[in-house]
Amino acid sequence: MASQEPPLVTISDLGRHAGETVRLRGWVYNLRSSGKIAFVILRDGTGFTQVVITVGAVGDAVFEQVVGLSQESAVSVVGAVRQDSRAPGGFEISATEVEIISPSHDYPIALKEHGPEFLLDHRHLWLRTPRQVALMRLRAGLIKALRDFLDDRGFVVMDSPILTPSACEGTTTLFQTDYFGEPAYLSQSGQLYQEATAMALGRTYCFGPTFRAEKSKTRRHLTEFWMLEPEAAFVDFEENMRIQEDMVSYMVAWLLENRAEELKVLGRDTGPLRNVAAPFPRITYDEAVAFLKEKGIGIEWGDDFGAPHETAISLRFDRPVFVTHFPAAIKAFYMKPDPSRPEVVLGADLLASEGYGEIIGGGQRIDDLDLLQRRLAEHGLPEEPYRWYLDLRRYGSVPHSGFGIGIERTLTWIAGLDHLRETIPFPRMINRIYP
Amino acid sequence: MASQEPPLVTISDLGRHAGETVRLRGWVYNLRSSGKIAFVILRDGTGFTQVVITVGAVGDAVFEQVVGLSQESAVSVVGAVRQDSRAPGGFEISATEVEIISPSHDYPIALKEHGPEFLLDHRHLWLRTPRQVALMRLRAGLIKALRDFLDDRGFVVMDSPILTPSACEGTTTLFQTDYFGEPAYLSQSGQLYQEATAMALGRTYCFGPTFRAEKSKTRRHLTEFWMLEPEAAFVDFEENMRIQEDMVSYMVAWLLENRAEELKVLGRDTGPLRNVAAPFPRITYDEAVAFLKEKGIGIEWGDDFGAPHETAISLRFDRPVFVTHFPAAIKAFYMKPDPSRPEVVLGADLLASEGYGEIIGGGQRIDDLDLLQRRLAEHGLPEEPYRWYLDLRRYGSVPHSGFGIGIERTLTWIAGLDHLRETIPFPRMINRIYP
Repeated sequence: MASQEPPLVTISDLGRHAGETVRLRGWVYNLRSSGKIAFVILRDGTGFTQVVITVGAVGDAVFEQVVGLSQESAVSVVGAVRQDSRAPGGFEISATEVEIISPSHDYPIALKEHGPEFLLDHRHLWLRTPRQVALMRLRAGLIKALRDFLDDRGFVVMDSPILTPSACEGTTTLFQTDYFGEPAYLSQSGQLYQEATAMALGRTYCFGPTFRAEKSKTRRHLTEFWMLEPEAAFVDFEENMRIQEDMVSYMVAWLLENRAEELKVLGRDTGPLRNVAAPFPRITYDEAVAFLKEKGIGIEWGDDFGAPHETAISLRFDRPVFVTHFPAAIKAFYMKPDPSRPEVVLGADLLASEGYGEIIGGGQRIDDLDLLQRRLAEHGLPEEPYRWYLDLRRYGSVPHSGFGIGIERTLTWIAGLDHLRETIPFPRMINRIYP
Repeated sequence: MASQEPPLVTISDLGRHAGETVRLRGWVYNLRSSGKIAFVILRDGTGFTQVVITVGAVGDAVFEQVVGLSQESAVSVVGAVRQDSRAPGGFEISATEVEIISPSHDYPIALKEHGPEFLLDHRHLWLRTPRQVALMRLRAGLIKALRDFLDDRGFVVMDSPILTPSACEGTTTLFQTDYFGEPAYLSQSGQLYQEATAMALGRTYCFGPTFRAEKSKTRRHLTEFWMLEPEAAFVDFEENMRIQEDMVSYMVAWLLENRAEELKVLGRDTGPLRNVAAPFPRITYDEAVAFLKEKGIGIEWGDDFGAPHETAISLRFDRPVFVTHFPAAIKAFYMKPDPSRPEVVLGADLLASEGYGEIIGGGQRIDDLDLLQRRLAEHGLPEEPYRWYLDLRRYGSVPHSGFGIGIERTLTWIAGLDHLRETIPFPRMINRIYP
């Protein structure tokens, strides 16, 4: 009898092999057996599927080995792919061969509840569970959707440097390093550099890690997080918001279509996400403060928002909302004042819906050299490290705007989570730099 | 006469507006005038085009202003788009309106030769020149092609952390920072973390900045550079090379098709790039050493290659070449020894063609726990920071492989440059962290 090596496939591809005999390789996620039949939930990184193994099909010796397998043992399986609408993923494998690649003893993450610190200590293994796999696939999809949106609209990726001689918005929350005898800092934002690249290429963006040495222990802070920061020449405050709402709407629609399975694993109610379509409502900071006062949430004009303020504003709307025209005094030095009312700026924060807070901050930048120099002085910042930045206003200054979207905060919202810590492969927090 | 605001277009889009009247916004790249006619080369980030301005069309006052414009002044122009095969980009604008947005006086980068240090000091402005714009568009395309290749083949982007408690390959060339009272280091490679994510999601990659505090002043070193590092479970040494050669071939073909204009601006002879198609030749380290000795290029078995060695090997072939089976002693601790000859490893460097050196390093990883522990000890590395990494061999260890491709080295080759410093928006070198 001529024997042919069965095709090697992934679990995500089983749908194309119904009725065929295939080989799968992966890890034992769960196993139960009763008498002469064993059910293995196999995972291979692309999905989870049930493998049915009987003494009759694989023989006594192999069956004996199989029932002794513990969680995360690596195996290679040959079997027939059977459509079964009750099975997870819709298919089931009737095994005819099982080969053990390597065992796994005393796997630390049992199929029971663990506390967050224990799971974070074992992040390298925790990532193997269905929920974390779904979350990471959602993250990758979110990143792809944002990049594709920008790439398709003429934005050119221009990586901003991480090691910088000066701070973007002050020095109190910077990680410092020794750069061959001089102090250097890890970037908190690539924006200033994007202003330079936007003057060269028109529309650009950077996407990379940013760092804040914040001593916050809140569920909304990481010390290392990823930001996507587009910047565009000849784009004003209004057009900047249109780009943002189009981008966020595109991303949400893309994920609803292409990551439906992952959202289901996460138990996300996708109803509210289906409302996320441009245009988004806009309210001014003044209106927001009046509303918060009315609701009895303590704030005075001139105060910055905290989480409770953002939540209350967010819950008023069925989709993300722009809060515009913040007081200049609580925003960064480069924000352009509203010509008709210079104490507020042409900047906006985008608050996610369902009570989630800020996911984007952005606005129009000061394009006047004198005003920018005055602002640096008012913020107590030296001119020398900003010499190149000032040059952008010396040589053909034009109106320009941009924004930064935080990947982890956005994913927290999309996935419907409480805490940022699960939204990045290896979170860094004030008390955590391992693994 | 009814007047309608002409459509706002970019230079890259002129082809869709031939014969129409449009508005362009951008910067004066060059200007020459004679009598009653002026020729402005306008740039807007998407391209360069010639604008013809006559006294007759714009009037004396505007014409006077126009001929006084200096390089990098920002302007808004309305005019008719005329097809002209002799013009750069194939079109020319006959202006009927010119509005000056902002002037530019004493622009530091005149249209003449400057030394590299002067240009690097003015990197924020140097990026505006045609050659740099082409190079940056080529960079963005290269990144897109690599990401698309991986995304389309089931690799999931999983960002590795930058702040790490331990070093991947020793501590002598690490940037250090204070992490809330503990030392932390900027990552030199995301690989070890990708080994964890590959066990969770099957195939993953990271793409981000990496850091080496190397005191090298060569034209092939940056202290901050971008690496793309794929890793895959159940992939062996051979399949790992096939993924690499397919990826590099895909990228080159994509750039030849989609960045032809940029390659032309750079004066790149694309002939040699057209040979870059899989499969790539493979030679062993032994063969390479024998060849180098024969050529009289000093080397002994066990020595690592320097630039002259890589150049000589590269020039033997018409496409990139894999050098395989390096001595274990000169490679990283995690490289899997060849079972048939344990003094060499199942690793390979990919050398770019035309005399360019290494652009990829990769190979199969050790999957045996005992051997990995011995290797750590032999390299004088403590086990404690690698506890999580060792776990990957404790719980369902499987054969796995990966590689890292350096974006700047690859772009240097594709663009046909001598030096890495132009291949990243804001280069960081031993003597440079500004702008």
